[in-house]
Amino acid sequence: MNFSSKLLEEAVAAFASLPGIGKKTALRLVLHLLSQPTEISEQFASDVLKMRQHIKFCSNCHNIADTPICLICSDARRDKSVICVVEGIRDVMAIEDTSQFKGLYHVLGGIISPIEGIGPSELNIDSLVRRASTPEVTEVIMAISPTIEGETTIFYVSKKLKELDIKISTIARGVSFGGELEYADEMTLGRSIVARIPYKNK
Amino acid sequence: MNFSSKLLEEAVAAFASLPGIGKKTALRLVLHLLSQPTEISEQFASDVLKMRQHIKFCSNCHNIADTPICLICSDARRDKSVICVVEGIRDVMAIEDTSQFKGLYHVLGGIISPIEGIGPSELNIDSLVRRASTPEVTEVIMAISPTIEGETTIFYVSKKLKELDIKISTIARGVSFGGELEYADEMTLGRSIVARIPYKNK
Repeated sequence: MNFSSKLLEEAVAAFASLPGIGKKTALRLVLHLLSQPTEISEQFASDVLKMRQHIKFCSNCHNIADTPICLICSDARRDKSVICVVEGIRDVMAIEDTSQFKGLYHVLGGIISPIEGIGPSELNIDSLVRRASTPEVTEVIMAISPTIEGETTIFYVSKKLKELDIKISTIARGVSFGGELEYADEMTLGRSIVARIPYKNK
Repeated sequence: MNFSSKLLEEAVAAFASLPGIGKKTALRLVLHLLSQPTEISEQFASDVLKMRQHIKFCSNCHNIADTPICLICSDARRDKSVICVVEGIRDVMAIEDTSQFKGLYHVLGGIISPIEGIGPSELNIDSLVRRASTPEVTEVIMAISPTIEGETTIFYVSKKLKELDIKISTIARGVSFGGELEYADEMTLGRSIVARIPYKNK
């Protein structure tokens, strides 16, 4: 691309450095900001900067927070006996959106992936073991994606928790609601037959 | 979406306000910045801010520039007798990328579009007429997209330039290189037969 302005080129490069944004999209975004009043760009830059400089991670569950302890951990109505272990904060948001879970979370900050060089020491596993060792915790739910790396992580974490007198569970796997049997993969379909559940006729 | 942090929510909203970026993509971009060192976000915010606050528009051709007169207009090697009229700065970049044009540009800043409320007075047409009136200019090329709005704009601008003793041309229309005849629309195919060009056998 032939940029007539160094400032334009730098701003396009900044956007294009973000994942999934190519040079053409970056140019479209920059030209959009340029067509808006200066205040819009100032607000945009300040929101990004403030977020990066002031955001905190909950010292209890490692979720993103504005305070040292996040809103979920400090909420007296949440059930402190159940900890739901997730890979990242997007999973916390996804589970919170379902309104089906009232316990606390523990964000690992990734999953064990030798290919990407992420070992157990990079993850928040020690703090999970410490939390699970307190007498009020009775169950740990492993809400990790059922991929090879995910299963490895579940295996490793559950081994670490084995000594403790708590229940360890994983989220249910099976055919999605609205999913067609014929398009489900063999593994999922096979397991969902083995792990069949009693039908409740209301 | 259930945000555990106000700062996170604001940064996601800032990205999601850009065209073509939804909330999920915005969250992915923000989490990417969050996983990088703070300096990356500082540089990003500063690039955006500097661009918006300091970018200039060439007082001659209205192209984006870092100086009062853009690099193309101030380049002594460019042919000042030909002005290529385009809708926006993206068109300047596209034509510059072809390396086929050595004249100057004139950026209209849009095209006449009654639906979007853009009339001739919103566009840089008066300054084009002034430039085209100088004795050194001999040709004006209308490099505007062949849409209804584009054709309207070409018609309006060429009427404004009619009194002047200059050549007015539009870019060639026809079947694209690599395009298949059977997929070309009737209008393009019909016109490309009427406006056929002599075949040069080398």
